[in-house]
Amino acid sequence: MASDNKNTKKKISQLEDLGNGIYKEIERGQNPYLIVPTRGLANVKYSKEKGILTLGESTSKRYFLNVGHVRKFVQTVAVASLSKNLIQSDKHTSLRDVFYQMRRTIPGTKIDVVDDQTETDKAVEDLELITDLTREQLHITANKNGAVAGDVVIEDREDTIDWAKMGSGGWAIPSTTEDIEFKRVNAKFVLYMEKAAIWDRLNEDRAWKKLNCVIIASQGQATRGIRRLLQRLYNEQNLPVYILTDFDPWGFYIYSAIKFGSIALAHASEKLALPQARFMGLLADDIERYDLKRHLIKFKDVDMVRLKQIQKYEWFKDNKPWTEEFGKMEKLGAKVELNAFTAKGLSFMTEKYLPEKIKEKKFLD
Amino acid sequence: MASDNKNTKKKISQLEDLGNGIYKEIERGQNPYLIVPTRGLANVKYSKEKGILTLGESTSKRYFLNVGHVRKFVQTVAVASLSKNLIQSDKHTSLRDVFYQMRRTIPGTKIDVVDDQTETDKAVEDLELITDLTREQLHITANKNGAVAGDVVIEDREDTIDWAKMGSGGWAIPSTTEDIEFKRVNAKFVLYMEKAAIWDRLNEDRAWKKLNCVIIASQGQATRGIRRLLQRLYNEQNLPVYILTDFDPWGFYIYSAIKFGSIALAHASEKLALPQARFMGLLADDIERYDLKRHLIKFKDVDMVRLKQIQKYEWFKDNKPWTEEFGKMEKLGAKVELNAFTAKGLSFMTEKYLPEKIKEKKFLD
Repeated sequence: MASDNKNTKKKISQLEDLGNGIYKEIERGQNPYLIVPTRGLANVKYSKEKGILTLGESTSKRYFLNVGHVRKFVQTVAVASLSKNLIQSDKHTSLRDVFYQMRRTIPGTKIDVVDDQTETDKAVEDLELITDLTREQLHITANKNGAVAGDVVIEDREDTIDWAKMGSGGWAIPSTTEDIEFKRVNAKFVLYMEKAAIWDRLNEDRAWKKLNCVIIASQGQATRGIRRLLQRLYNEQNLPVYILTDFDPWGFYIYSAIKFGSIALAHASEKLALPQARFMGLLADDIERYDLKRHLIKFKDVDMVRLKQIQKYEWFKDNKPWTEEFGKMEKLGAKVELNAFTAKGLSFMTEKYLPEKIKEKKFLD
Repeated sequence: MASDNKNTKKKISQLEDLGNGIYKEIERGQNPYLIVPTRGLANVKYSKEKGILTLGESTSKRYFLNVGHVRKFVQTVAVASLSKNLIQSDKHTSLRDVFYQMRRTIPGTKIDVVDDQTETDKAVEDLELITDLTREQLHITANKNGAVAGDVVIEDREDTIDWAKMGSGGWAIPSTTEDIEFKRVNAKFVLYMEKAAIWDRLNEDRAWKKLNCVIIASQGQATRGIRRLLQRLYNEQNLPVYILTDFDPWGFYIYSAIKFGSIALAHASEKLALPQARFMGLLADDIERYDLKRHLIKFKDVDMVRLKQIQKYEWFKDNKPWTEEFGKMEKLGAKVELNAFTAKGLSFMTEKYLPEKIKEKKFLD
């Protein structure tokens, strides 16, 4: 059933090793434990070398025979068992569904394995940390959103899918992009944008054909499925990835999360973050150059607060081009939306802005 | 360029008639005006005969030579002109983009045509009412979301798209489903669900193949594109449409909006609502039958408030099966999620719940 037998076997044996280890300790009369890396801000570090957020060295031992530990211990092992079954049957499930599947009373007791989804969510994260397998590899999927178009043919669940023949809709990017296979890739780069409406416009213009690229959008933050897809297109297909957002702190943060990873998902950065992602705009200079001044939208307090937070991020604060950009935004006290380009003509982005940016290679890193 | 020349010509002539009418009145020295149906709750009525929410008879005249009217008059005419250009060039744009395209200073004055997107949004709605063309027909698109799978082949923007060969992602449903052509439809019904995660599971099970149906999901409320697609699949392909949501007031409202239309979009009900849509569950009886009691989630205040609102809707309050259903929910004071079925096995919905529902035809109307 599973698309990649070798990977499947490797994942299953990792999960079985975990169980066997515990079993052996019990047989030897020992108190079994799991070593779990500590999550949370205190143990999240920005690795200059890797260019991504990572977890630090701090770990904790979680014992079976410890009243304070046993619940989490059992939940983590139960998720491992569930995940092994998912992988073996080649089925996927959502975090919410994991909760329902785990919700049962331990025979002979009145104790439920889990009472609340926060417990199963944490257990899944713990298992990711212990095994070094991502949620997706454990067959537990995240939210789905977004679409893609471009001259690329992929294979997914035995279907051959041509991203160049998706009409006005595009291919709906699945929650897991781990197992799709790239069959033919005719593109020079990837363009990720934060707005589905911009994607619609570029797709209608067949911008992906004119510029020989792949266009991807969700709405707002990129899903895990999209982030992994961007990473795979870069790593496996050598396609540079450019990020296109509004000129505002929220857009900058979308770029930040794609490139460096996020604090909440620091343990998954290696599988999701893309330090080589480049910011294509909007930039402060574009406002002048493309005469967008009349479309400045004055900051609300919440925008300025967010900007100040982002300015302080470790991965930005020694980066001169970015600190300058933040400074310009602070001085303007205003944001500009990508949509403002439509005031210059509906196809202005396809015919002018994007070709110029790509030709001049004016990106922020 | 446009996919359907006849429709295109008809739409353009409707918009041109509007402009010519105004022009003639000016030539005759008259004060031109537009007749605009009144929007808002006071003029929204439930039509028992049609089974949908519609606008009442109330209209107002909007004069050019009236200080209080002129701004809106000009904005409506400007949107008509913009829309005519969009249709002629076969391009589409979003509401946000309409705002940017309309934002300009009237030559020789210091007056801007629009200051704020709420003005252009209203002007678009007015134009829909005046011309009887939907936003989509005016080439002004709404948000995009959702995916579809099934044994159906469509044509869209010269691409042939097979919904049966979309892997794990599905075809991303575009913001406008007005112009897609159904080439081959091998399905007995359509299943719309409110949750993308449920869709993922059904798609992985190839439920659409096993049950011979089309599966569609967004996340939460159905987009305009989805609602129009459901309507077209029913009207043009004679496919019954079944709605699948959680057992909670929010799920019931998703059904209500698809079936009867919504107050805000009452003027577009004829093009969006589907009075023949049927509710497949979850229903109170399912909780007993499928032993979902342990998965009841106690109502919060906000849930009960919402339930009471829905109970009072004119289109529900004389409907006995529904009032009984509301009564059962009120008595339980609790909701149940579709996800709870996964506690019975990952493929329980595909293999048991859905086949039983369809066989027994136990729907709520």
